[in-house]
Amino acid sequence: MKLAMVGLGKMGANMVRRLVRDGHEVIAYNKSPDTAIELENELENVTAVSSLEELIKTLTPPRVIWLMIPHQFVDDSIEALLAAGLEKGDLLVDGGNSNFNLSKQRAERLAMSGIHFVDSGTSGGVWGLENGYSIMVGGTDAAIAMIRPALESLAPAKDKGWGHVGPSGAGHYVKMVHNGIEYGMMQAFAEGFELLEAKEEMGLDLHQVSEIWQHGSVVRSWLLDLMADAFASDRALSSLSDYVDDSGEGRWTVQDSIELGVPTPVLTLALQMRFRSRQSPSFAGKVLNAMRAGFGGHAIKPAE
Amino acid sequence: MKLAMVGLGKMGANMVRRLVRDGHEVIAYNKSPDTAIELENELENVTAVSSLEELIKTLTPPRVIWLMIPHQFVDDSIEALLAAGLEKGDLLVDGGNSNFNLSKQRAERLAMSGIHFVDSGTSGGVWGLENGYSIMVGGTDAAIAMIRPALESLAPAKDKGWGHVGPSGAGHYVKMVHNGIEYGMMQAFAEGFELLEAKEEMGLDLHQVSEIWQHGSVVRSWLLDLMADAFASDRALSSLSDYVDDSGEGRWTVQDSIELGVPTPVLTLALQMRFRSRQSPSFAGKVLNAMRAGFGGHAIKPAE
Repeated sequence: MKLAMVGLGKMGANMVRRLVRDGHEVIAYNKSPDTAIELENELENVTAVSSLEELIKTLTPPRVIWLMIPHQFVDDSIEALLAAGLEKGDLLVDGGNSNFNLSKQRAERLAMSGIHFVDSGTSGGVWGLENGYSIMVGGTDAAIAMIRPALESLAPAKDKGWGHVGPSGAGHYVKMVHNGIEYGMMQAFAEGFELLEAKEEMGLDLHQVSEIWQHGSVVRSWLLDLMADAFASDRALSSLSDYVDDSGEGRWTVQDSIELGVPTPVLTLALQMRFRSRQSPSFAGKVLNAMRAGFGGHAIKPAE
Repeated sequence: MKLAMVGLGKMGANMVRRLVRDGHEVIAYNKSPDTAIELENELENVTAVSSLEELIKTLTPPRVIWLMIPHQFVDDSIEALLAAGLEKGDLLVDGGNSNFNLSKQRAERLAMSGIHFVDSGTSGGVWGLENGYSIMVGGTDAAIAMIRPALESLAPAKDKGWGHVGPSGAGHYVKMVHNGIEYGMMQAFAEGFELLEAKEEMGLDLHQVSEIWQHGSVVRSWLLDLMADAFASDRALSSLSDYVDDSGEGRWTVQDSIELGVPTPVLTLALQMRFRSRQSPSFAGKVLNAMRAGFGGHAIKPAE
C-alpha cells in the first residue's frame, strides 16, 4: 500500500525501511527535511516531501498518514495536517506513545470531520527493523482494515505480534500498560544484578550469570538478552550513568491505577525509583538526617 | 557417567529422565520407594534402590550423589548418607533451593571429611525435561569436573545454560537472586494484567494482548509465554485462587539485601504482596478503618 510517514527519528525511519522492504510505497516527511532526503536516497519507493501541503498533494485520497513523533507534538501535527488539506475519508495513525485519553479525544474530534484515527502502540525500539514491531491498535474495524497491509509488514509476522485490541484509545492503553510492566521488570533485574555485584565474596561474573539465565531459566526474556549483551561489552557498565529518565507511559500507568483504584505497588515503586535516581542530593535524605541528628544525636555525614 | 539421584519429585524424576536420555546411568532413591521402582520400570539405565545403604553399596567410589529434595531435609539426608557410608573422595550435589549460607557451611563441614560438595541452583521447573535446566553451580574446580558430564546433559546445551559461578554457596546465591528477580517480574506482570482487566471500557482480551506481546515487544519473556498459555485455557483464570505461596528464595534475597545494605525495594515489595495475598481479612486493614472511623467519622464497611 501507499502511505505517508511523518517523523523519521530512529523508530519512524526504521519503520519506513521495514515497510518498503515488504513492497510498500512511502511518502516521507520530517521537520528537518534532510532526514527525508537521506531516506529517499537510501531506499527505493520512498519519496521525500518537504511540507505537509506537499505530503497531502502527493497522496491520493483516501490518504493514510502515520505519525511517528513525540507525543507532545501530536496535536500540532494534526492541526497542521488539517490546515494542509487532510479531509473526509483520510486516515491518521498515531504510532507514538500518546496518552490514551488524548487518543480517544482525538479520534472523536477527527470523526466529526469524517477522518479516521487509529492509535497504535508500537514496541520494539531500534530492534524492530530486524525483529518486527509488536503493535497494538485501537479504532474502528473500517480504519484498521485500511492499514492492515502496513501492520502485517511492520509486525514480526503477518499474523503475529499485532492485533486490533479495542476501540479508540485501546492501542495506546495496552502499550501504556506494556511499558508500565517493562518498568517493573527492568527494576527487578536492576536490583537483582546490583545484589549479585555487591556480593563480593562470591566473585560473580554478571556476564556469565546473565548468559546462564538466558537458557532454560524462569527469568529468560528479551530484557535479559539485552543485559547479557551489555555486560559482554562493558562488564562494570562503567560507560553509563545511574540517572534514569522516563518518557510518560510509566506515569500514566500509575495515574490510571489511581483512577481505577487498582493496586500497582511494584509498577509505582519502579517509577519512583527512577525519580530517586535523578536526585543528588535527595532533600528527603537531608530531612531524615536532620531528624536522626535531632532525636538520637547520631553521627551524620555532612554535606561535602 | 554414573550417579545417584536422591529425591524423585517432579524436578528429580525429570532430571533422571533427561540424564538417561543422554546416556547416563542413574541409581534412583526416593523416601517412598514406589516412585523409584516406577522410574526403573519406565526407563533404561535406572536402578531403583530402597535405602541409602543400598545406594552407597551400588555406587563405586568416588560416588556422585545428587540431592533433589526440599531444603528442609538436606541436613538429615547428609547425616543419613554419612551414616550409610559416604566417604572421602565422594561428591554430594545439593540441587535444591537451599540457603547459600547453609551450603557454604555444609561444604566446609564435608570438606573436613574429604567429601566434595557442590551447590547447584537449578531453574526450569517442570519444563526442564524438554528445554533443559538453567544450572548455576558453586564449589571447587575439582568437584565441578566430577559432575561436568551430568551438567552438560541437564543444561539446554552442552555449553549453554549452565556455569560454574563461584565458590561454595555461589550456585545457590545466584539461584536465590534469580528467584528474587522472578518475584519482581511476576508481580509486574500481575499488576499490569490486573490493570488491563479492570479497564472495562476497553473490552480487552488478555489472551490476545499476551500473544501480541510475545512477538517483538520489550516484555517478551518466558513468564509472558506461560501467561499466554494460561489465558488461552482459562481466560478469566477462574480455576485459580489469589492466595500466593512462596518457598524461601524471595525471603532470603530480601534478607541478604538487608545484610549488605543494598536497596531492593521492588523485590521486597513483590514478596510482601505475596504475604498480603494470604490475608483475609487483613488486620492492618481493620486498624486503618479503626483510625478512619475515629478521626473522620468516615463510613466504614463492617465485618461480614
